[in-house]
Amino acid sequence: MKLYTFFRSSAAFRVRIALNLKGLQYESVPKHFARNEHLAAEYMALNPQGLIPALAVDGVVLSQSLAIIEYLNDRHPVPPLLPADPLDRARVRSMALAIACEIHPLNNLRVLNYLRSELQQDDDGVGTWYRHWVREGFRGIEQQAREFSAAGRYCFGDAVSLADVYLVPQMFNARRFKTDLTPFPTLVGISTHLESLPAFAAARPEVQPDAQ
Amino acid sequence: MKLYTFFRSSAAFRVRIALNLKGLQYESVPKHFARNEHLAAEYMALNPQGLIPALAVDGVVLSQSLAIIEYLNDRHPVPPLLPADPLDRARVRSMALAIACEIHPLNNLRVLNYLRSELQQDDDGVGTWYRHWVREGFRGIEQQAREFSAAGRYCFGDAVSLADVYLVPQMFNARRFKTDLTPFPTLVGISTHLESLPAFAAARPEVQPDAQ
Repeated sequence: MKLYTFFRSSAAFRVRIALNLKGLQYESVPKHFARNEHLAAEYMALNPQGLIPALAVDGVVLSQSLAIIEYLNDRHPVPPLLPADPLDRARVRSMALAIACEIHPLNNLRVLNYLRSELQQDDDGVGTWYRHWVREGFRGIEQQAREFSAAGRYCFGDAVSLADVYLVPQMFNARRFKTDLTPFPTLVGISTHLESLPAFAAARPEVQPDAQ
Repeated sequence: MKLYTFFRSSAAFRVRIALNLKGLQYESVPKHFARNEHLAAEYMALNPQGLIPALAVDGVVLSQSLAIIEYLNDRHPVPPLLPADPLDRARVRSMALAIACEIHPLNNLRVLNYLRSELQQDDDGVGTWYRHWVREGFRGIEQQAREFSAAGRYCFGDAVSLADVYLVPQMFNARRFKTDLTPFPTLVGISTHLESLPAFAAARPEVQPDAQ
């Protein structure tokens, strides 16, 4: 298995966590964003979306972190990343998707670059934008975690799930952009616990081979 | 089943299509964006994310369109919205997610409002932003559809899937914002076919009870 990755990509971070949770070995193939390596013809031929991550597995190249993680969960069901009950599965997916669809897409590098280059935003403008969408998204997930977390250690119940795989990378980024996290004590508590687990710790940006 | 919906919401449009494809009856409960009805305390108590759509089903309220649609597909497996083979499932999800995570989040109403109010963008600036992200996203999906569509009638193979449920609402919005679609002939052809199917036609914004 080959993971096309970039140490700082939040979406690649999620896939690294999922691979670690499943105990799967993989080879890292770094694609550096700042050098636009993800837009080179050779990579676009593998992943026409031109985004990181992609996973070469079982003879094909899969793209989109959630599609990759659901695939890994289909093929390697233990430990499960989704609960067995369909309603619970929907609740876990809802929390993960609030990050995947409401926070991260607004705050990834290409969007921040557009704000700088096309809309003439300086660091302050970009930071304000960034923190606004984190706050908007975390507000709802904080409520959901308060309702669904059993003991403040995982987003849902008392076992790791897809929602945890999404929370930790988003929390890393929120801190990097100096977001005030005091309104989200449940999420901060859960993330702090998760970050201590080996599968999450080994996936951190700063310990990746391409982090310099 | 009660669907909290807004006629023009692209995410609600997806859920309406999925409900129709599954042949499920539901009651529409309109929440008007421009009147901020989705942010009222009563609705936030049902859906703490404060977003449209939400589905009241089986005694709970589910949020996030993809979580809702996967739930409907779990509970009502016929017709399937995902292929049986896990690799094919990942390919279909990748196409749907390229819309769900790369295009739509950047172009929904609250983001366009932020561009206008906080970043002083006029109609031209907002339109340029909108069309930029549609082009960026459609480019990769066009390639995927060219590879995976059997006869140019569906995004994947020759049956309806999750990718189709995502394509049609995004195509509606792209046209509304006057996006040049000539670089995406495969997607345009597929969407034109899909729009003729009753499940898609009945989900269109303009035929919803709250469209005025």
